[in-house]
Amino acid sequence: MTEGDEDDADAGGEVDLGRVLALSDGVFAIALTLLVLDIRIPDEVHGADFLRALSGLEPAIAGYLISYLVIGVLWLAHHRLFRELRVRHARIMSLNMVLLALVALLPFPSSLLAKHGDESVSYAVYAANVVAVFAVQTLIIAVSQRNGDLTPKPGRFPRFGWYLQPITASFVFVVWAVVAVSGHPGQANYAWWLLVPLVLVSRRLNQSKQVLPQH
Amino acid sequence: MTEGDEDDADAGGEVDLGRVLALSDGVFAIALTLLVLDIRIPDEVHGADFLRALSGLEPAIAGYLISYLVIGVLWLAHHRLFRELRVRHARIMSLNMVLLALVALLPFPSSLLAKHGDESVSYAVYAANVVAVFAVQTLIIAVSQRNGDLTPKPGRFPRFGWYLQPITASFVFVVWAVVAVSGHPGQANYAWWLLVPLVLVSRRLNQSKQVLPQH
Amino acid sequence: MTEGDEDDADAGGEVDLGRVLALSDGVFAIALTLLVLDIRIPDEVHGADFLRALSGLEPAIAGYLISYLVIGVLWLAHHRLFRELRVRHARIMSLNMVLLALVALLPFPSSLLAKHGDESVSYAVYAANVVAVFAVQTLIIAVSQRNGDLTPKPGRFPRFGWYLQPITASFVFVVWAVVAVSGHPGQANYAWWLLVPLVLVSRRLNQSKQVLPQH
Amino acid sequence: MTEGDEDDADAGGEVDLGRVLALSDGVFAIALTLLVLDIRIPDEVHGADFLRALSGLEPAIAGYLISYLVIGVLWLAHHRLFRELRVRHARIMSLNMVLLALVALLPFPSSLLAKHGDESVSYAVYAANVVAVFAVQTLIIAVSQRNGDLTPKPGRFPRFGWYLQPITASFVFVVWAVVAVSGHPGQANYAWWLLVPLVLVSRRLNQSKQVLPQH
Repeated sequence: MTEGDEDDADAGGEVDLGRVLALSDGVFAIALTLLVLDIRIPDEVHGADFLRALSGLEPAIAGYLISYLVIGVLWLAHHRLFRELRVRHARIMSLNMVLLALVALLPFPSSLLAKHGDESVSYAVYAANVVAVFAVQTLIIAVSQRNGDLTPKPGRFPRFGWYLQPITASFVFVVWAVVAVSGHPGQANYAWWLLVPLVLVSRRLNQSKQVLPQH
Repeated sequence: MTEGDEDDADAGGEVDLGRVLALSDGVFAIALTLLVLDIRIPDEVHGADFLRALSGLEPAIAGYLISYLVIGVLWLAHHRLFRELRVRHARIMSLNMVLLALVALLPFPSSLLAKHGDESVSYAVYAANVVAVFAVQTLIIAVSQRNGDLTPKPGRFPRFGWYLQPITASFVFVVWAVVAVSGHPGQANYAWWLLVPLVLVSRRLNQSKQVLPQH
Repeated sequence: MTEGDEDDADAGGEVDLGRVLALSDGVFAIALTLLVLDIRIPDEVHGADFLRALSGLEPAIAGYLISYLVIGVLWLAHHRLFRELRVRHARIMSLNMVLLALVALLPFPSSLLAKHGDESVSYAVYAANVVAVFAVQTLIIAVSQRNGDLTPKPGRFPRFGWYLQPITASFVFVVWAVVAVSGHPGQANYAWWLLVPLVLVSRRLNQSKQVLPQH
Repeated sequence: MTEGDEDDADAGGEVDLGRVLALSDGVFAIALTLLVLDIRIPDEVHGADFLRALSGLEPAIAGYLISYLVIGVLWLAHHRLFRELRVRHARIMSLNMVLLALVALLPFPSSLLAKHGDESVSYAVYAANVVAVFAVQTLIIAVSQRNGDLTPKPGRFPRFGWYLQPITASFVFVVWAVVAVSGHPGQANYAWWLLVPLVLVSRRLNQSKQVLPQH
């Protein structure tokens, strides 16, 4: 009896993946939608004050878009990973709950950044939360590959290819936070430009060589 | 190797449409339900003040109904579009995420309109958000038709028929906002009457000529 | 070409019922869960004040339970109705959107009752909202029966049996609101006892005479 | 005609389990995600005050993690239970609605604990809510076993094995609340260590003796 069997026995058999994904999609959808609650202006402003309050929302709206993008990318990564997982052990389900806990937490640093974007610590807290999500995603990849449950990537690096996205994205967030904490919050957003070469390299490494039949 | 194939390869194969729609339905459901949070009266009012506060909610309730209608129509359009998409490329999925970002944003202009309906800028912000959703919907239609993935409309204009609803609805919202911004917020709602002839014409253009078998 | 066909043609063919129910379940789930946000005590109370604030929550908790029960019963009715609908026209889908608008609105009168339970108008607003939901449910039943799309009830009244629950429940809510508005908010809750004979009669009328095979 | 048949007849036939689980997953997902709303700092703090406010969030974040863990464990138990239920009676569906009412209520004691962790009564309210959820879960197990609808556990105690988790977890929460109410809120969290021996014993009792075929 291997450890994997014991794990299955403990969970009482097969995992109902449909429900795991339904819960996950629910948490992602709510996290995406709660972000809008940070965009608001006081009830009592009128005329010129109203216009000032409205144009003062710019950082909040930029924060909304960035956080939406981050949670959207995390969802796309979650979707891509679980589509390629063949056997699901109870352990993956527990790791998924930890991942969702960190996703559901994201509206907090997101709100921090929207309202306290001048404090460099906000950037560090935000990056820590995002990197933690990617770390759990990496752990799910590692556990699945050890059990032989993850379809290899079609490119040159069938195993390592899975790690490219979480590592790349975490690296960009760390650079972003380090620039902000070292006293240049205004310049932190230049770190996003790192994504251009990284995505290009990562695409090339994961590129399939054979032509896929159109289906 | 065509560009479409490359796109597929990058996404790592087939798209799990069930999850894309589950996330979409979640975002729509939450956007629909968050609207109610704008309808509230202070805790501390009693007697005649309570009745006054209650009847003062009329614009908030009207705003709730309009915004519910708008998000409801957007959902029906989303539902109709994705039902007729045969092949789903990763690019459609990314565009769908952009569409959802704009849907999840709608509670903000909706709240603006409910609380600051006397400011004409609120109408412009609201219309801009709705038109942006329709623009992304139009883009999804265009990309799908270029790939030959969208079932043609049964009427006289199999390709153009898909664009009728987003163009019609955007036009009405632009008229509505222009009337409001040009200093007549109170008369903007007359623009809705434009919907009557537009929907009638649009129905006739998309009307099938053969009798569909009842199933 | 009948009117029903035209309706189908306008909707562009079959309705994806899975998504309609997913959106419905999402709206019901969020309406159920938003209710808890009305149960809260001030941040700054301590010791004896804290205990007083806590025991002062009794009406809010009672309101939570009643509203949860009401939305729960509405969901069970929705679930029962859509399970027995064989063909779904686009018109049913539009009526379902109206029903969901009224369900998503329920947290408002629910919050009104929790915070302003001493004002008799709160009861009237609450009852009006609930009766409106049942009215739309009745309309969906009537439209479906006219199209021959609704499985008959197994009891003595195969058609009328479907109307028993919405009529019974609406009647109880009207009595409840009338008692409250006529100056006896404290005695309104006795109206719930009407449910006992009504449910018994309604069960008997819908009772099947043949023994169902256990499956 | 047995009582179970009557129950089925009343519900109008089979239960659409997909929707029951969709509603359940929605309620769990929202309860999980609402917890984050308790983690917030005032808008107007800056510099050293901001850092102080941020580090003052420690109990709120600890509370988030504990409540997330509790709701997560409740969801895993719900998932495990409904996977093994072969026939679903209408009565189970009603009990499930009661269970969801108590799950949807959890953000209230959770918020109480986050903001009033120094008041021992908060611990009692929290524990009462959690134990109530486990009590309803136990009732669902008992009703299902009486009807012969629940797959026996693979271990030595095929029937009793189902009760181990709710009893164990309730016991730990009662100890936790008793320690807090008897004047030692700070020491209540030591009660969690009880989980280590209890989980080990519970695993051993539910352990299968035969090797499960890998599927």
